[in-house]
Amino acid sequence: MSGTDRRINTEGLPERGPVVVLLQPQLGENVGMVARAMLNTGLDRLRLVAPRDGWPNPAAWKSASGADAVLDRAELYDTTAAATGDLDLVYATSTRPRGLVQRVLDPREAAARAKVAVSAGHRVGLIFGPERSGLTNDDLALADAVVSVPLNPGFSSLNLAQAVLILGYEWFRAERPLPAERMARNGARPATKAELDNFMTRLEVKLDEAGFLRPPEKRPGMVNNLRALFGRMELTEPEVNTLHGIVSALGYRRGGDGEA
Amino acid sequence: MSGTDRRINTEGLPERGPVVVLLQPQLGENVGMVARAMLNTGLDRLRLVAPRDGWPNPAAWKSASGADAVLDRAELYDTTAAATGDLDLVYATSTRPRGLVQRVLDPREAAARAKVAVSAGHRVGLIFGPERSGLTNDDLALADAVVSVPLNPGFSSLNLAQAVLILGYEWFRAERPLPAERMARNGARPATKAELDNFMTRLEVKLDEAGFLRPPEKRPGMVNNLRALFGRMELTEPEVNTLHGIVSALGYRRGGDGEA
Repeated sequence: MSGTDRRINTEGLPERGPVVVLLQPQLGENVGMVARAMLNTGLDRLRLVAPRDGWPNPAAWKSASGADAVLDRAELYDTTAAATGDLDLVYATSTRPRGLVQRVLDPREAAARAKVAVSAGHRVGLIFGPERSGLTNDDLALADAVVSVPLNPGFSSLNLAQAVLILGYEWFRAERPLPAERMARNGARPATKAELDNFMTRLEVKLDEAGFLRPPEKRPGMVNNLRALFGRMELTEPEVNTLHGIVSALGYRRGGDGEA
Repeated sequence: MSGTDRRINTEGLPERGPVVVLLQPQLGENVGMVARAMLNTGLDRLRLVAPRDGWPNPAAWKSASGADAVLDRAELYDTTAAATGDLDLVYATSTRPRGLVQRVLDPREAAARAKVAVSAGHRVGLIFGPERSGLTNDDLALADAVVSVPLNPGFSSLNLAQAVLILGYEWFRAERPLPAERMARNGARPATKAELDNFMTRLEVKLDEAGFLRPPEKRPGMVNNLRALFGRMELTEPEVNTLHGIVSALGYRRGGDGEA
């Protein structure tokens, strides 16, 4: 049952991320898609409680898109209590908690708490109900809190793999905070301020020659605006060279003095 | 092609959330799953650029799980430029930007910026490349920034609907902030502090009678611990009544004085 093309790569992944526990999953295909979403988000420990079509189920491997190693290591249990007995903190995922009075966390807060718990050496589990019916109150009562994915209340049904993906996504983010914005430079180094200043100075000379930076009383403001415009681009060194080339090319076309 | 069972419910949804633009989607089934993920997360405007198998494609409706209204209103375009021409802010989704120097946002930051832009009356679009190949550099160059979903770098391939779901999820959250934790009470009202105090006082009387709160010098600390234990439960009024019943029942079994 183990795939020969094991594309799993858990390098840099946390040792003991949350365990994903699927209760009575119906379609093997969905278990495979859950395995994929888990590996996408750095989770690799899967437990199955009484899957309807038995286990191992070849349909799972077919739909796992290469996340075979998660399936190969999946553990089989008879009951929810058995599958969660060694865990310290259990969150149940539901889009509509009902009947019980329980704490409800959003996925982000659940991930933050899971991270703190895992860092303290505790074992954390995320339980998911069967595709159609969702979690029963018996299952919910075993959990420390319910995690509710905020969705359009008029259309809130998620498939199993999507629910796992969102919880896993929040887990992955909590585990590895990233800047909200960064620059993809594809290997190029950022231009130094001196390289940028050299270009701006040259541009200003050319624009003065062309009579663009006039009248004189407006020149300082115009220069500042230009410096702000190019400055906010976070230019790379090759891009500054490209801009030098553009200035040369435009100068050549307009006045014939191509050599800057 | 329009479903008779239109389960769309856009009540309370923003008028002009981001447009989802799918470039050369291959399988109609994936378009349907995208529509479902969109409606889950409160997005309902879909544009298709040159779908491989033509449009309308019945396979899309079959896999949309009832999100027919999104498909019914989908708009068809020949080129990316045509599909994005009326938009003010375009984000391109990619797990691996390549070749170009571009700003890269995480999905949360992109959603926050989209919310600000939409609130200001600007039109925002999210573009997604074909299933296998992803976005070309031609497409990426049309975007204001790239949105990159943080995923396991060793296994980062998401399917189309999952990518839409994560961006939509962040949009939905940005649009409707929720508390990180809340209590699901299922219609019951929180107990008042007087009801809680009444129960605690009665419990203490019963425990004094039973000789539990001893020795006397430890009594204040024990009482405080009990009050903290019950206090942090955020009890509802019916639950306080249940606890009263438990105290009566236990007292009846132990000492025969069932009436409290």
